[in-house]
Amino acid sequence: MAYGLHFIEHITPEESLLRRVGRVLAQGETPYQSYLLYESRGFGKVLMLDAEVQSTERDEYIYHEALVHPAMLAHPEPREVLVVGGGEGATLREVLKHPSVARAVMVDIDRELVEVAREHMPEWHQGAFDDPRTELVFADARAWLEASDRRFDVIVLDLTDPVGRENPAKLLYTREFYELVAKKLAPGGVVVTQAGMLMLDRYQVHTVLHRTMREVFPFVRSYRDWIPSFFLAYGFIVAAEGFDPATYSPGVLGARILERGLELRHLDADFIEAMFVLPRDMRAWIEAETVVSTDARPFYLTPEGEARVG
Amino acid sequence: MAYGLHFIEHITPEESLLRRVGRVLAQGETPYQSYLLYESRGFGKVLMLDAEVQSTERDEYIYHEALVHPAMLAHPEPREVLVVGGGEGATLREVLKHPSVARAVMVDIDRELVEVAREHMPEWHQGAFDDPRTELVFADARAWLEASDRRFDVIVLDLTDPVGRENPAKLLYTREFYELVAKKLAPGGVVVTQAGMLMLDRYQVHTVLHRTMREVFPFVRSYRDWIPSFFLAYGFIVAAEGFDPATYSPGVLGARILERGLELRHLDADFIEAMFVLPRDMRAWIEAETVVSTDARPFYLTPEGEARVG
Amino acid sequence: MAYGLHFIEHITPEESLLRRVGRVLAQGETPYQSYLLYESRGFGKVLMLDAEVQSTERDEYIYHEALVHPAMLAHPEPREVLVVGGGEGATLREVLKHPSVARAVMVDIDRELVEVAREHMPEWHQGAFDDPRTELVFADARAWLEASDRRFDVIVLDLTDPVGRENPAKLLYTREFYELVAKKLAPGGVVVTQAGMLMLDRYQVHTVLHRTMREVFPFVRSYRDWIPSFFLAYGFIVAAEGFDPATYSPGVLGARILERGLELRHLDADFIEAMFVLPRDMRAWIEAETVVSTDARPFYLTPEGEARVG
Amino acid sequence: MAYGLHFIEHITPEESLLRRVGRVLAQGETPYQSYLLYESRGFGKVLMLDAEVQSTERDEYIYHEALVHPAMLAHPEPREVLVVGGGEGATLREVLKHPSVARAVMVDIDRELVEVAREHMPEWHQGAFDDPRTELVFADARAWLEASDRRFDVIVLDLTDPVGRENPAKLLYTREFYELVAKKLAPGGVVVTQAGMLMLDRYQVHTVLHRTMREVFPFVRSYRDWIPSFFLAYGFIVAAEGFDPATYSPGVLGARILERGLELRHLDADFIEAMFVLPRDMRAWIEAETVVSTDARPFYLTPEGEARVG
Repeated sequence: MAYGLHFIEHITPEESLLRRVGRVLAQGETPYQSYLLYESRGFGKVLMLDAEVQSTERDEYIYHEALVHPAMLAHPEPREVLVVGGGEGATLREVLKHPSVARAVMVDIDRELVEVAREHMPEWHQGAFDDPRTELVFADARAWLEASDRRFDVIVLDLTDPVGRENPAKLLYTREFYELVAKKLAPGGVVVTQAGMLMLDRYQVHTVLHRTMREVFPFVRSYRDWIPSFFLAYGFIVAAEGFDPATYSPGVLGARILERGLELRHLDADFIEAMFVLPRDMRAWIEAETVVSTDARPFYLTPEGEARVG
Repeated sequence: MAYGLHFIEHITPEESLLRRVGRVLAQGETPYQSYLLYESRGFGKVLMLDAEVQSTERDEYIYHEALVHPAMLAHPEPREVLVVGGGEGATLREVLKHPSVARAVMVDIDRELVEVAREHMPEWHQGAFDDPRTELVFADARAWLEASDRRFDVIVLDLTDPVGRENPAKLLYTREFYELVAKKLAPGGVVVTQAGMLMLDRYQVHTVLHRTMREVFPFVRSYRDWIPSFFLAYGFIVAAEGFDPATYSPGVLGARILERGLELRHLDADFIEAMFVLPRDMRAWIEAETVVSTDARPFYLTPEGEARVG
Repeated sequence: MAYGLHFIEHITPEESLLRRVGRVLAQGETPYQSYLLYESRGFGKVLMLDAEVQSTERDEYIYHEALVHPAMLAHPEPREVLVVGGGEGATLREVLKHPSVARAVMVDIDRELVEVAREHMPEWHQGAFDDPRTELVFADARAWLEASDRRFDVIVLDLTDPVGRENPAKLLYTREFYELVAKKLAPGGVVVTQAGMLMLDRYQVHTVLHRTMREVFPFVRSYRDWIPSFFLAYGFIVAAEGFDPATYSPGVLGARILERGLELRHLDADFIEAMFVLPRDMRAWIEAETVVSTDARPFYLTPEGEARVG
Repeated sequence: MAYGLHFIEHITPEESLLRRVGRVLAQGETPYQSYLLYESRGFGKVLMLDAEVQSTERDEYIYHEALVHPAMLAHPEPREVLVVGGGEGATLREVLKHPSVARAVMVDIDRELVEVAREHMPEWHQGAFDDPRTELVFADARAWLEASDRRFDVIVLDLTDPVGRENPAKLLYTREFYELVAKKLAPGGVVVTQAGMLMLDRYQVHTVLHRTMREVFPFVRSYRDWIPSFFLAYGFIVAAEGFDPATYSPGVLGARILERGLELRHLDADFIEAMFVLPRDMRAWIEAETVVSTDARPFYLTPEGEARVG
């Protein structure tokens, strides 16, 4: 270990990550979060939001491919896509790879952070903010959705975890919010969300989201991938009303990847299928969950990462 | 974060894990390594060897099921099994779950550590050391194998990574060692080894082992699983001479699990199959590797985790 | 820096000490505090109480000489001495070096910790617990003093800082407690107390104690010494009713050291005098303090080290 | 403790300081050292050079008053003053407070660092770089001194410790260097140097410097002060050829402070005298030292802080 600048990152209440920090590129506090962008040897640029890593230059492709393509590929021809959150612009970038997309609306509450990303993180957005199909909205996603009468083929929820009892983001994880999302899906629409870490005694973001989405959607499917810079296996959930978004065979997925000309570094059809195969213990956690997050009793995490409702 | 006792664990040269340490149960230096066994809130008892976690009470079942059963299930009726390393006794425990096993030989160089495990880690071995089918040998595995004329249906290599230029364990990762292992396999035999972390720029233990084993075995298959307490996706390699040990269908695997009465907490047939499906980037790393570890130029890691040959 | 076991110690809310921990010798929780005794390379055995170092084998002589001898030497012939706290036994050891002492009563609330010290810390007590002049009492010091009708020539208060709003020890730092102490001093008696760290914006334990003792004693004198293992300049306060305990010249102090045959490793007459000379900034902090700790509004520290009253 | 940005600072090979880092103001690598200037809650701005704190906004007055004034006050009328090192400009600032000073030459090798200080650290230099009496030279001090024929009333050596076997700064700590310094002192001249930490088993910078200067100067006097942001008692050494620079009485010192109109926050005459009174153990370390640093076998520290010669 070296002396010098480090970031102590929260993982669990008892385990933290001590990361060597190189040159600091940007640092500040927006009205919504604190951010730090720095250079590292192993991960390139690293973006921290509050106490946790958000994404890194070298492995963001893993997270963003895993978040975006299973849902996009489950839809035969996604034209209208909504991204909620996703300030770095990489979720947008992956969405725009699908040639059928006519319009990609990104709604993020944090204008300052998006400006930091636009200026300092071109490796992430790669011009996606300036794509003519992109429509960038700075607003509270729930209020914006309530006021909007648009419908989307795919909705990608790329939100930070609801940390803190007073965090208004916890209202983006409730049954009522998913009901709103369901109303904004076009027929045949698909929604996908990042869904928290999946480990031993720290999986409740995932299981509560899964359980809550089941209240709204007939088909809810969990999958996971290992994100190197998170040092965690990370969960995602895809849901739909009229069909099961996880039942496409590798043959169909492979054909769609090919016909859309998707250049993927991490995923292929076989691996997409394999991500949906969870081990026994994880399946048991999901099946055993009883908590539904509601506006009246929303789910959140304490700053230490303990799950709470209320 | 709390004040108090912590363990700073090496993960990469720039990232360390800061783990809260509860009650210290055992601590010492054997001729081969230093050890620390302590209690934690999230993982129960935690065993550290030198600078790195070895296994924990709460999630050791994941590592040990993933290490043992794919190889054991690939063999139609494993009778004679050799475990190299595996001081905690949990690898042995999983091997002994297969009712066809008549004899399980465990060769570990570190008698003191095995005694610590026997006394303080009953949750791991669960009596496996005292099973009448167990034969416990304290010896250098390579010398013992050279001197022995026994042959095995399954050989499980459960070794620590070869850290340090002077570490004699690096001779348990060379082409010559695998040639020796191949000679000790009975017809239809299978060998499996733990095979290092698999992340971004830290995967060379895995890829060099894979490349080296290919020099010896016609069929070499990588798989991986996410080990919570390692905070890493971890690699394994299974190899055989006369057949491909990764081609059994979930149907066959499921039938064997059933007929052997295996009680598994983490694995089932579908998940075993899914573990062998690697993402594109990982497959590319394995394919691109050119280094073969040999007795003349053995592969090892520096204490900081950098890969070296020589 | 090395990987492995460390203790993260609280110093200020923003600065912590990261100490390499060797062999753990004793560890536990008494009804009053948690303790950890371990071996270190630079300090020998180290005793931690809760989040902070208490004393170390190699430099405890500095703290204990500085705490005990200025008060003992200010008294012409101390016969009856009371030590409050001082669980390691080293304060007692220093008191007993003065040949005039006929009786040394030590009142400590934490029997378990004293037993740990007796067994594992002979370098500290050096048999002091077994000295025929020693009288060991396990009790709350305030209650014991209230119930007792004994009087003492010197009273040494060797207490931990009052950390935590609910910490009953904060009642050992109030005006009412010092009034009780004053009543238990024999004519010509002297009281001395450890009195917290003295740094930049972290000195209020010292200044509030000084200000509070001024309510009770006509003569109150602060002095300080640098304690290596604390990585802090540390304050002490000596007080008396009938004379100024800091006015003895080096000549008198030197003569008393000689006639009592005191073997000192850290102090001599000149250095005792120099310890009472505080820099301008520190004197200003003491003079500016207005807070008096009372039973109604006792002074305490938050776990992070912020000063509070109430 | 909080999550987020921290600096791990070297203190001893086994103890490190973990400092919370706020806003990063400047960060870089000069040809001589790496630097980091950041904001902290307790110390204001903090300047780190390589792995160690250099000085902080809130307590730099303590270090700089202690370094400069004892030597300046030992001289009856310092006119020509040389500062070697002292890149922040605060040593210069303190020197210039003495009204007799006609010329203050500052020789520092690191132009880039001085420019960082000039721009970002006005609280330190307070315009001293622009004082008409200041002469700023960017050069290797030893080469510059060898080439110069000027003589000085007071020479202040404000150098970083000689860390690293290849560090050319170790040649600013040898007998030959002090011989050169002695030649550049005007009659009645005084030299003072910072002289390393003074703790338990980490005092050799101080004792070797003391022993080495004794080879050159008839009068060599150690003193110390506690520097809060260093979390250390820190040593200084003042030396002269024709008189003992530590024998002025508080009366004389007080008169000089008064007649020079010095506004001091930390020192006064009594405290200056008290700084020269060392405890028994420290005196013993100084007396026992036998190592003389020479050009042939210069003294240096390993990066971990171990003392070496050669």
